[in-house]
Amino acid sequence: MDVQTVNSMTCEEFVCVFGNVVERCPLIAAALWSRRPFSSTLELENGFNEFIDSLSIEGKEGILRCHPDLAGRELLAGTLTVESRGEQGQAGLTSLSSADALRMNQLNSQYKKQFGFPFVICARMSDKDRIIQQLESRVRNQQLQELHCGIEEVKSICRLRLQDIYNRAAKSTKL
Amino acid sequence: MDVQTVNSMTCEEFVCVFGNVVERCPLIAAALWSRRPFSSTLELENGFNEFIDSLSIEGKEGILRCHPDLAGRELLAGTLTVESRGEQGQAGLTSLSSADALRMNQLNSQYKKQFGFPFVICARMSDKDRIIQQLESRVRNQQLQELHCGIEEVKSICRLRLQDIYNRAAKSTKL
Repeated sequence: MDVQTVNSMTCEEFVCVFGNVVERCPLIAAALWSRRPFSSTLELENGFNEFIDSLSIEGKEGILRCHPDLAGRELLAGTLTVESRGEQGQAGLTSLSSADALRMNQLNSQYKKQFGFPFVICARMSDKDRIIQQLESRVRNQQLQELHCGIEEVKSICRLRLQDIYNRAAKSTKL
Repeated sequence: MDVQTVNSMTCEEFVCVFGNVVERCPLIAAALWSRRPFSSTLELENGFNEFIDSLSIEGKEGILRCHPDLAGRELLAGTLTVESRGEQGQAGLTSLSSADALRMNQLNSQYKKQFGFPFVICARMSDKDRIIQQLESRVRNQQLQELHCGIEEVKSICRLRLQDIYNRAAKSTKL
């Protein structure tokens, strides 16, 4: 997908395509439509980052709270977004041993109790062992430091989801 | 539902209950969880208003763009949120004559072309004739004036959705 295609989208098309680039926050894509025309797809990615950075602390915490637990209730219940399901699958979280699932669950609860938002990590740039290790390490961070960590992970997820959208569009054009 | 119940909710429960008080913007409820404890349910309502007011112009436009057209494609396709379906039904928009449906469709398109966001009105405080009249009138507003109008309607919708949540909870407690 090139930037001309992005710039030609109606508001509804744009939100349909980019609405879940930030998990369950279509508001952000919907807001960015105001910035058209974009000079490049990179400018759109920067727009997501800038919008996130412009939010207050509670706004950033809100973004993290729109994310599901890793290997959590929503995975079991089948209510994850398509993107999140794919990402957790790629990190091996859909086929954990009972012991790993239990450990992950305990760590997620401890983390959430500590910070008041769920642990967010770009699962596709990680794997089960690294995720558990990061959970154990990050739970010892200070509140604001950890908010910053979580938000930087959101931006990594955002970048990969945008790449997926562009790649899918490029493939379907070639068919 | 009293404020103690609200304050006792986990983050997931809170987002589950209040996540669609602003249409398709769970981010806002998720952010407001940071403000607990609330001293009253009115303080929670004020929180929604304050969060909306704190957004940039593009953020406010984003909120409006998360709303469906009235009597539009989503109503026909059955993809409206439960809240929106109920509100459009109460305003008589689910049983329009073909002529009214066509007129509404034309006006919605004209409005969206003009402003770059959909026409938002608190349907439950209105009816079909008044909605058409408001569409015809508001399309002549200036851009910023109309953004302000739309956002004030979002706040009215928000207030009624909160009342519904409290009333439903009060009823189920009495059963």
